Amino acid sequence: MSLLQETVTTIRPRDRVAEGAAWERQHALTKPRGALGVLEDVGAQLAAIAGECPPPLPEPVALAVFAADHGVHAQGVTPWPQEVTRQMVANMLSGGAVVNAFARQVGAIVAVVDVGVAGPPLELPGLEDHRVRAGTADMTVQPAMTRQEAEAALEVGIDVGRRLVDDGGARLLVAGDMGIANTTASAALVATFCGLDPEVVTGRGTGVDDETLARKVAVVRAALARHEPDPADPVGALAAVGGLEHAAVAGLLLAGAAARVPVVLDGVISGAAALVAAALCPDAVGYWVAGHRSSEPGAAAALRHLGLRPLVELDLRLGEGSGAMLAVPHVVAAARVLREVATFDSAGVSDKGDGT
Amino acid sequence: MSLLQETVTTIRPRDRVAEGAAWERQHALTKPRGALGVLEDVGAQLAAIAGECPPPLPEPVALAVFAADHGVHAQGVTPWPQEVTRQMVANMLSGGAVVNAFARQVGAIVAVVDVGVAGPPLELPGLEDHRVRAGTADMTVQPAMTRQEAEAALEVGIDVGRRLVDDGGARLLVAGDMGIANTTASAALVATFCGLDPEVVTGRGTGVDDETLARKVAVVRAALARHEPDPADPVGALAAVGGLEHAAVAGLLLAGAAARVPVVLDGVISGAAALVAAALCPDAVGYWVAGHRSSEPGAAAALRHLGLRPLVELDLRLGEGSGAMLAVPHVVAAARVLREVATFDSAGVSDKGDGT
Repeated sequence: MSLLQETVTTIRPRDRVAEGAAWERQHALTKPRGALGVLEDVGAQLAAIAGECPPPLPEPVALAVFAADHGVHAQGVTPWPQEVTRQMVANMLSGGAVVNAFARQVGAIVAVVDVGVAGPPLELPGLEDHRVRAGTADMTVQPAMTRQEAEAALEVGIDVGRRLVDDGGARLLVAGDMGIANTTASAALVATFCGLDPEVVTGRGTGVDDETLARKVAVVRAALARHEPDPADPVGALAAVGGLEHAAVAGLLLAGAAARVPVVLDGVISGAAALVAAALCPDAVGYWVAGHRSSEPGAAAALRHLGLRPLVELDLRLGEGSGAMLAVPHVVAAARVLREVATFDSAGVSDKGDGT
Repeated sequence: MSLLQETVTTIRPRDRVAEGAAWERQHALTKPRGALGVLEDVGAQLAAIAGECPPPLPEPVALAVFAADHGVHAQGVTPWPQEVTRQMVANMLSGGAVVNAFARQVGAIVAVVDVGVAGPPLELPGLEDHRVRAGTADMTVQPAMTRQEAEAALEVGIDVGRRLVDDGGARLLVAGDMGIANTTASAALVATFCGLDPEVVTGRGTGVDDETLARKVAVVRAALARHEPDPADPVGALAAVGGLEHAAVAGLLLAGAAARVPVVLDGVISGAAALVAAALCPDAVGYWVAGHRSSEPGAAAALRHLGLRPLVELDLRLGEGSGAMLAVPHVVAAARVLREVATFDSAGVSDKGDGT
């Protein structure tokens, strides 16, 4: 059995008993019922994931940034040169990227993983080299990668996720990515799995102009027409129009679920990868928290499809795991409520007594 | 000159030069322009407040919870007994309230201040006793307090804010409150200062039923008809239909502005207090950050009137400063971006070169 198969078969539905206990406890705490809104949902989810109430604090936090390049870059879908992927990998390793600043704030471990950056190997200190290939092929011309490569990249993500939990002690995983042109591949995946038109799910990525946006939509449409990716064959669809980092993020999402550790999704790359992972294992969705609502339209479409509500809404569109990292304090706060807040009984506070 | 007058005359417009420098710096950092959305606005605001770019990290954080009671409680505007204010003050002092859990997460100092809890003095260890009176009068029958009492409560907030900054070393203030029935007084203030009908700005508070909501609206309408509070006389309006904790929060907001320390607003009590403080000193608004969008309709109306966009949107309706406290990591993150992220030049990352 492959690592992918083994991981998927390990994933169990989340624990509805612990989830119910969390709701019961939330109703006994010194606050009006429901007054913490979405945070109460997150608290119940954390209990369901951990299988106990109160759930443990989801710390330490570990971020995995999967970096890869995209052959579709040749179609002019972004004004940024492809070399920026390499340069940003170096920037992340030296702690200078936005996500590094946010990771320091929550004390998160940061793993930067080359799963398929274009050009020769990077050979940078601290970089985890798990290159499956030097960037994908141009999906408008041929499949982005082979099925075997897609599976290998999925397993890179699983392996990294496992190690962050088993060796790193992580109790909350954060999905990050770096790859110039990866919002184009994301749009193709979201269109495939949500059954939506490319025009609806393709966005401006880093902020492209109208002309480039129109080109992106046409490129996604052409790739879908060429490959006709089938959402019932998630690895095949991923191989046809996805990215190596999408595959690795999907693997991380499955690894978290298998280890009963929650994973925070970032933006559209995470959302697209989550669609792949959910198609491989629907029970895994219960282990994921939507970090934020990116301004990229495909991100919102993916979250709707998955039934996840984002915690942060700040019009972010950066990637790297940055939006997910900003959601981490909210996730921790949800656990703290269940662990630390006094009950009406313990604090001697009068409940209003009408049972609502 | 009174402490209130002295404070108001100390407040300066925020520094547009430092604000411009922050935008210039944000455009040079290794991220697409505007990719951090609202967080970039917050970063620029922090620079404008501090008068330097990058701005200092807004830490340590200090929360002031002002507790008081409301004579309008007698009108049946909430199912919670008035004694819950006292009980929750004790709960906060022993660290068992939701806002305590959130404050621990960000390492915030917590000051709990009795500015007018009903009944005899509480005499609890750690409580700051600045009682102006033992709860307001019922605003449907007479003014909630005298003008002198409103000024005294405003000055309690100023004094607490000053001490948290000068003695406590706080570089970020968070406005909190506790007071059964205080969403009713908030609605009256919001209706007054925003010129809106009570029906539009009165909400369910802790979650009251339809009948109680209708009673709240009628009570607010009756109070406004009786006193005809004038937004051009903010202290007079506050005295007529406000609360002692609204006055104290307004004072804290002015103290922060005078000390050039940002203040994070919580929900509808903060919003209503901010309308009073903004009417006393329009330049103070530039020093405030809207922590979250409460589900209470008056909160959204107040923020719109002030031109502030909330950072957190989680359907919270608890008060205590809880929503504001959840926004604190976002405010700190905005400063970290300007202080810690590498520039395209320093990191050797290619900008896309089209100047957008």
